[in-house]
Amino acid sequence: MSDLPNHVEIHEEGPREGFQIEPGPISTADKIRLIDALSETGLHHIQACSFVNPRLVPGWADAEAVVAGFTAKPGVHYTGLYFNGNGLDRALAFEDKLTIRGSISLTASEGFTKKNLNRTHADNVEAMKRHAELHLAKGIPVTRVGVMAAFGCNYQGDIPPAQVVKTLDDGMKIADETGAKISLFSLADTMGWATPVRIERVIAAVRERWPDMKISLHLHDTRGLAVANAHAGLKMGVTRFDSTVGGLGGCPFAGQPKAAGNICTEELVLLCEEMGIDTGVDLDKLIEVGRMAEDIVGHQLPGELIHAGSLDAFRRMAA
Amino acid sequence: MSDLPNHVEIHEEGPREGFQIEPGPISTADKIRLIDALSETGLHHIQACSFVNPRLVPGWADAEAVVAGFTAKPGVHYTGLYFNGNGLDRALAFEDKLTIRGSISLTASEGFTKKNLNRTHADNVEAMKRHAELHLAKGIPVTRVGVMAAFGCNYQGDIPPAQVVKTLDDGMKIADETGAKISLFSLADTMGWATPVRIERVIAAVRERWPDMKISLHLHDTRGLAVANAHAGLKMGVTRFDSTVGGLGGCPFAGQPKAAGNICTEELVLLCEEMGIDTGVDLDKLIEVGRMAEDIVGHQLPGELIHAGSLDAFRRMAA
Repeated sequence: MSDLPNHVEIHEEGPREGFQIEPGPISTADKIRLIDALSETGLHHIQACSFVNPRLVPGWADAEAVVAGFTAKPGVHYTGLYFNGNGLDRALAFEDKLTIRGSISLTASEGFTKKNLNRTHADNVEAMKRHAELHLAKGIPVTRVGVMAAFGCNYQGDIPPAQVVKTLDDGMKIADETGAKISLFSLADTMGWATPVRIERVIAAVRERWPDMKISLHLHDTRGLAVANAHAGLKMGVTRFDSTVGGLGGCPFAGQPKAAGNICTEELVLLCEEMGIDTGVDLDKLIEVGRMAEDIVGHQLPGELIHAGSLDAFRRMAA
Repeated sequence: MSDLPNHVEIHEEGPREGFQIEPGPISTADKIRLIDALSETGLHHIQACSFVNPRLVPGWADAEAVVAGFTAKPGVHYTGLYFNGNGLDRALAFEDKLTIRGSISLTASEGFTKKNLNRTHADNVEAMKRHAELHLAKGIPVTRVGVMAAFGCNYQGDIPPAQVVKTLDDGMKIADETGAKISLFSLADTMGWATPVRIERVIAAVRERWPDMKISLHLHDTRGLAVANAHAGLKMGVTRFDSTVGGLGGCPFAGQPKAAGNICTEELVLLCEEMGIDTGVDLDKLIEVGRMAEDIVGHQLPGELIHAGSLDAFRRMAA
């Protein structure tokens, strides 16, 4: 089952994930400082902000100021998160700086869809069809089908791999009906249910149906297994991961404010590089940015390398 | 390369590791309370204290009071750590409550041996021979060869697997010369250098030489890879792990006071149980003990399950 990739594409989501959940206000200048520092680490994909309702997510009321303020580095793709037409229009105001692509986002758990979106899966399929049409009408490619709660759900329990396949199938039907060309499946462990065995089973089931589709994993470290899950994903040939510098963010669904957030970018980079998988990232530079993130939020972050340093730093000292 | 065990033996070292490194004084009563609670979780091996020089490790000046105070549960093996004849004699005063076995402890890194013990590897081999003889003369079996820094060293850098084999060979020569019957190799990632690939390579090299020896892993989460390393070990058929509840402890060698300690017992249990590997541990009870440990030390511990809860707890709610 081992099919190690040569290169892994890391999508850094620290600014967006981190600053939407921190309790204290983070200044616009600090957000820009972090994005600009991340741009210098060798990361090629940075989610810079969230165009969401500022009454619901006050931490991103300054999304426009942040995007206007950071310095776009050539070769780096910056994105903004949004959920509706209003958010899309706010993103489109910065189409010179942001990479904008539509996504068909579904959830493998009916229970989570109801709790999180207050709608049924069938309603969500309809909403996502309109969402895809809205993008395509504006000439924006829709390239991704995402499945949340792909490895389990706090409200529904275990999610069978066949349910993930069915949900992707629903997404692909939307793509067929709207003419969207899908090049990526994103599987999210929204509530931290993934284990290495479950990663293997879900990816095997998805691969059996769509052997050549690129798969991305969005992992949370809610129960401490995120790096082990990434390792299982790499062995299954996964070539794209979302992660956050320092492990910024949290898990609002765990019902515990101290619960960990996303898999930490530094740990993912260490894992890949020690397996001989190229990430393009300068780990020592990234660790410095993790320390900057820790300074900005004003409390210890979960990323361990911030506190221990890289192996290469010790190798140089020992040489 | 997959050779999953049916059962894994977990050696809980939280009390010993945790209370030697915590900055604040921990009361004898709290240490006893934690050990007694751990005894009720299904763990069968608990390292309860450290018989070390109280001037060097003031946190364990009350070792005797702790061992006298806890309630030994039938079927649970309690141990104390010691490094010399004086420590052994202190342990022997409690041979009714403690399981006492000798260990030949060597280090794969000459650099670490010099820094940590202020002696050469050759001197250490001589010292360990006398240590084994001391045990055998008192009728105590010497059953274990341990290798520290088996996956890398802050002072020496990468450690080749052949060096680990050579170090084990030195230990086995001591066993041959003294008549010790070795039944276990313990490989310690003392400074957090292990990665899944390195685990696979070292264990493969050891197995090639000693195909039937039982192998134990002592993993530190210094760089966030401990659970991924345990997963790699399980896939190589490792059947014994040391760990600490809540991730108690720290890594004094990382040179960073915020560096993480040992692999967290709860996360190891979750990993095993979700792979269908029996540990005998009631995870929900263990999580409660992790929360008790967090209360006792008075700060957040690295174990994620303390904050997020088990999957089984959510499965019951969802059912």
